[in-house]
Order: sequence, then C-alpha cells, then structure tokens
Amino acid sequence: MNINGKHYRTIWTAPNGRGAEIIDQARLPHEIVIAPLDTLEDAAIAIETMQVRGAPCIGATAAYGMFLGIAEDPSDAGLERAQTRLAKTRPTAVNLAWAIDEITKAVAALPEEERAVAALARAEEICDEDVEISRAMGEHGLKLIEAIAAKKSGPVNILTHCNAGWLATVDLGTATAPIYLAHEKGIEIHVWVDETRPRNQGASLTAFELGAHGVPHTIIVDNAGGHLMQHGKVDLCIVGTDRTTRAGDVGNKIGTYLKALAAHDNNVPFYVALPNTTIDWSIRDGVKEIPIEERGSQEVTQMTGRLPGGDVVTVDIAAAGSPAANYAFDVTPARLVTGLITDRGVAEASEEGLLKLFPERR
Amino acid sequence: MNINGKHYRTIWTAPNGRGAEIIDQARLPHEIVIAPLDTLEDAAIAIETMQVRGAPCIGATAAYGMFLGIAEDPSDAGLERAQTRLAKTRPTAVNLAWAIDEITKAVAALPEEERAVAALARAEEICDEDVEISRAMGEHGLKLIEAIAAKKSGPVNILTHCNAGWLATVDLGTATAPIYLAHEKGIEIHVWVDETRPRNQGASLTAFELGAHGVPHTIIVDNAGGHLMQHGKVDLCIVGTDRTTRAGDVGNKIGTYLKALAAHDNNVPFYVALPNTTIDWSIRDGVKEIPIEERGSQEVTQMTGRLPGGDVVTVDIAAAGSPAANYAFDVTPARLVTGLITDRGVAEASEEGLLKLFPERR
Repeated sequence: MNINGKHYRTIWTAPNGRGAEIIDQARLPHEIVIAPLDTLEDAAIAIETMQVRGAPCIGATAAYGMFLGIAEDPSDAGLERAQTRLAKTRPTAVNLAWAIDEITKAVAALPEEERAVAALARAEEICDEDVEISRAMGEHGLKLIEAIAAKKSGPVNILTHCNAGWLATVDLGTATAPIYLAHEKGIEIHVWVDETRPRNQGASLTAFELGAHGVPHTIIVDNAGGHLMQHGKVDLCIVGTDRTTRAGDVGNKIGTYLKALAAHDNNVPFYVALPNTTIDWSIRDGVKEIPIEERGSQEVTQMTGRLPGGDVVTVDIAAAGSPAANYAFDVTPARLVTGLITDRGVAEASEEGLLKLFPERR
Repeated sequence: MNINGKHYRTIWTAPNGRGAEIIDQARLPHEIVIAPLDTLEDAAIAIETMQVRGAPCIGATAAYGMFLGIAEDPSDAGLERAQTRLAKTRPTAVNLAWAIDEITKAVAALPEEERAVAALARAEEICDEDVEISRAMGEHGLKLIEAIAAKKSGPVNILTHCNAGWLATVDLGTATAPIYLAHEKGIEIHVWVDETRPRNQGASLTAFELGAHGVPHTIIVDNAGGHLMQHGKVDLCIVGTDRTTRAGDVGNKIGTYLKALAAHDNNVPFYVALPNTTIDWSIRDGVKEIPIEERGSQEVTQMTGRLPGGDVVTVDIAAAGSPAANYAFDVTPARLVTGLITDRGVAEASEEGLLKLFPERR
C-alpha cells in the first residue's frame, strides 16, 4: 500500500538484484526506514529482531534469506547452513518453515551455478502469491462491506484488533484487505483501531499504515470497543488470526475474545480473515488445544515512545518491582464468530462450514 | 493501608492542626511524595490536578478545603468563596458537592470565631465515616471471598479493573476493601490487576497499593482477563463504580463491560462494590441514561513513565498525527452483574434487589 503517496510492499528485490529491501517495522511508527538485506545474516536478524513480523511477511523474508544464503554459498552445505540459520529465528512461525522448504525444493535439483537465480525467482513468486491470497480475501470481504454500505448512510465503521494489515503480509494484509479494497472502490469507511496492548501493534502499525494510505481511522484503547458497540458505532469487526482450528475456533492476539463477546452481545457481525495456510486441520477445540505463548513481563510494564525532541526511549510505566504476566494470544470460540473470510470465500465458523470450502480436507 | 510497613490514609490533618497532608497521587507509582495542603487554593489545585482522585477521596479533600477556606476568612463571604472555588474543580464529582454542603451545614449557624474548629472537626468526621463505609463493604464482600476459599485449595484469584482501592477513598477502598480484610484475616488471595488504559490506574495505583501493603498481585493488560477466565484462573471479579442505576446497571471505567461479558461467559461471579451514595435512584437504563465523558485523545496516544535514570517523562506512542478517541466510562448492564456489594449488604443487581436493602427508596 502507499506511504506518503508512494506504493510499497513490506519486502522487495533490491534495485541491484543482489539482495532485498524491507521497511524496518521495529522503527515504526516513529521513523520510516528502508533497511537493506544484503546477507543471509541480515535476513535472519531482521526476523529475529522483528524488523519484519506477521506470518506471511516472515515467510517472504525467509525466502529472500534462503536466496541470500545460496548466493553466498550455493553448495548443499551452503543450502543447509541457510536452512538452519533461518529455521531458528522464530521457531513457531509456520510460514517460515514453509518458505525455507519452498526455496529448497526450487533449487535442490539444480547445478550450483543456477541455484541463486532460481531461488530469487521463487522468492519473488512467493511474494506475488501472497499478494494474490490477500487480494482474494479482500474481494470476498469486500462484499460484506458493500452489503452494509448499501443499507446505511455515512461511513461503514469497522473495528479491528492488533495488526493484520499489509505490514504483516507482503501487501494488502489479511483483515485489512477488504478495507483497502473498499477504500479503493470509493466506499466510505472508518476504522476503529484497537491500540492492542501490550505490544501496541494497533496504535503503532495499523494506525500508521491506514494513515499513510489515507484510510480514515481512530485509535481507541482496547477497553473501548464494547462501549462503541453498545451505542451502534461499530458495523462490523474484522480481525486476523494466527491459527484457526478445524472447528472454526480462532487463536489470535490477546483480547480478540473480549471483542467477539461484545460483538455477540450487540449483534455486530464478527469476521476473521485468514489465508487457508493458517487453518490447523489437526485440532478442533481451540481453548483446550492451542498453546498460548507467555512472553516477558517487561512488554507489559514498559512502553516505547518519542520524547518531544524526537528521541525514541523506553520507560517503565508500573511501580518498580510490580509483577506482571503477559499472555500473548487468546482463543475465540467459533460460536462467537460470524464467518471466516478465506482466500476461497467466506465460510461459516464450523467444521462443516470450512469443509464446504475445503472439501479435500474431509 | 500500609506503605513500606507504615499506615497511611490518603488525607489527614497536618501535625500542626492548621492544614492537611495528602499522598500526591499524580506522582505515583514513580515517587511517593507527601504534599501539604496549607491553603484553600492548595486543596482546590490538588483536586484539579488529580493529586487526589476517586470520589470519596475528592470529597474528603473538599471538606479539608472548606476548612482551609474558612480558616483564611471565616465570614459568610469567605465561606462562599471556598464553596465557589472548590465546586468548579471537578464539577461532575457528586461527593465534592456533598462535602462542601456538609461543611457549610456544620458552620453556617456558628459565630465566625468558632467556624474553623467546627469545619476541621466535621472534615475529620467525614474521613472517619468514609473509612467506616469502606469497612462495611469490606465485611460484606469478605464473606464472598471466604465462601470461595472454603471450597478450593490455593489462593482465591480476584480480578479487578481500574483503581477502586484505598487511594480512591480515605482508606481500605471500595472494591479492594474485601481484599484487604481477607488478607488481614490470613486468607490466601492473589489479585489480577487490569492495567486499565488509558490512564493506567490499575498498573500505576492498584498494583502500587497492593504491593506496598503486601498483597500478592500480578499486572495484566486489559486484553488478558477473558483468557484467564476461560482457563479457570479467576475465581471472582470485584470492581468499583462511579454511578449505579436504580435497576443495577453499573457505570464504571471503560472496559468494565468487557470483563463482565467474559465473567458471564465463563460462570465467574462478577461483583461491584459501591458506597450507597453512588446509586443514582433517578435513572434505570444505564446504557441510555448515563452520559459517558469523552476526554482528551492525548491520554490514549501518550504515556508517562520512568527513564532508566529515574526521570519521569511523557512519550508519544502512536504515529504522529494519528487521531484517537477517549471514552472514559462504559456501562455494564445489571444482567451481567452477580451482585452489588454495598455498605448495607450484598444486593442482587436489580431494582428489587436494591430496594430490599434500601426500602426507604421505594
């Protein structure tokens, strides 16, 4: 999408063709910095330090990392070195392992001198494919927004949580794809952006990307959504997901469940946008079967921001020594989800609903 | 309650008897500062700048402010000057008007030379009465905690939102009164403290006061409570309220409604502690009839904390220019409230339930 009128993806091939460039998301929203990935190590560090984040964006970066590793050493040993280095950057990211595997398949049978070119081609293809998946989700979700727009005057008010935006993918995003397509089509929309504590991905990333692209939006604290829904100020919720069970239970950023409860209590449609790769067909009961990561407590007790002079600093916001717990995700039961916006269409959040779109999983 | 082993109230008569002293709550949790209130103006500024906050604590400070104003000028004109100055500090605070009125009633008929002494006596009495109200709520709520403790091993896990602690009253608090009494009685408890964005009163004040008194607790982001309840980690919620309707609808800090929804969805008892003065007998439907204050957006987009060196600074946490909205309160419908812990006992959250305890309101 656009930043100050210029179109960007989150990652792309460098002009010299010998590496990649990314938007350094760890510096957002305080600074917009393009960072070069010139080596395998650059790519690995970019993933580790969350200069890139979001499963699809991590996958794309790993693909470029594989290309860079192969360019450095196209032998089988070099290939293995790249696989090993990248695999340990964020071990739980499904797309990471998938992208490493895709590049490996694309080059394994080739002579060493052809491997780098083939790896780069496949990395670029992976990026293009990801945009197509986002576009497909966007088209399906757009119909939901159009249906609401047809029935009301004034903007369609959409609430979202965390960042399931273009910054988490290669372009367009997951939950934001329908929003960007609606905006492109001239439908009047306004997005309520949940701040999304503790990492503030809503206030830092979603609000940044919507603002930079020109989509009307308002940051709210995570506490506010229920009040807005009680007063008819939300027409539709769309969130992303890290993992969806076969039965339609949705694992997503902590706090998603609370918004789904409020939507249900106020008859506000609650949709989840997901590329089909995030469906875990092996489990059904999300509350029981999706393990919830606990992260460091300093994400709760500290906050990073800009001083009036522009310096970016991290401050302690709680009393010294106050203990804190940091559960990163929660599970929204399928009964609270109106529908799952997938790249194949919108499914009812149930095993039967998903199997209608994915009959090969029966 | 205690800070580092020493007992404090939020406000008390200065040792020289000519003014009051307060804990400067605007400096918490970063610094513990005792501030003198030597003049009417000191008291008014303390309320305006939120050095004191919480309805009962504001009421007590206004009472001392009236005493200080009368000590400066005990004439009827002086009395009126004090009334006018204090009334405009926080116009919506019910206890503020009540306290001004109480002191006025106590001195109006007296000769000028007796007024200051009488005003101080009534201010001290108002403080003592407030502690007794808290203690009564505490005793009634304690029974609920004892009942849970009797049925389980390990600590009773209580979730609370915002600060309805002793810092919001003169001592003991409202929602925290049962917690402190349970702790005093040796019942093992653990408190989940909602951070409570945007003003962070949970992380800054509730966590501070529980920690300073020695009550085990853990700060969580406002997003986390639903997940904890899904996994059986919350036995009981107790929150405060700014205004309760005749029908038991509860206006409280934004986000309370979301926790009540989660409690209801997981069969966790959800109690609201309230001095009977906060019941608004003139309204029934809280969602329709309780006006919700909108505050400045910088409370959402900025955060105050300590730098590693100890300096306290305010930083911008969102992208420059990102719009934000700041709804301060929400309304929890009575249907989601298990009971109202009042100073007269625990009522069912309904008109009938409240009228049983307050038959004079029939």
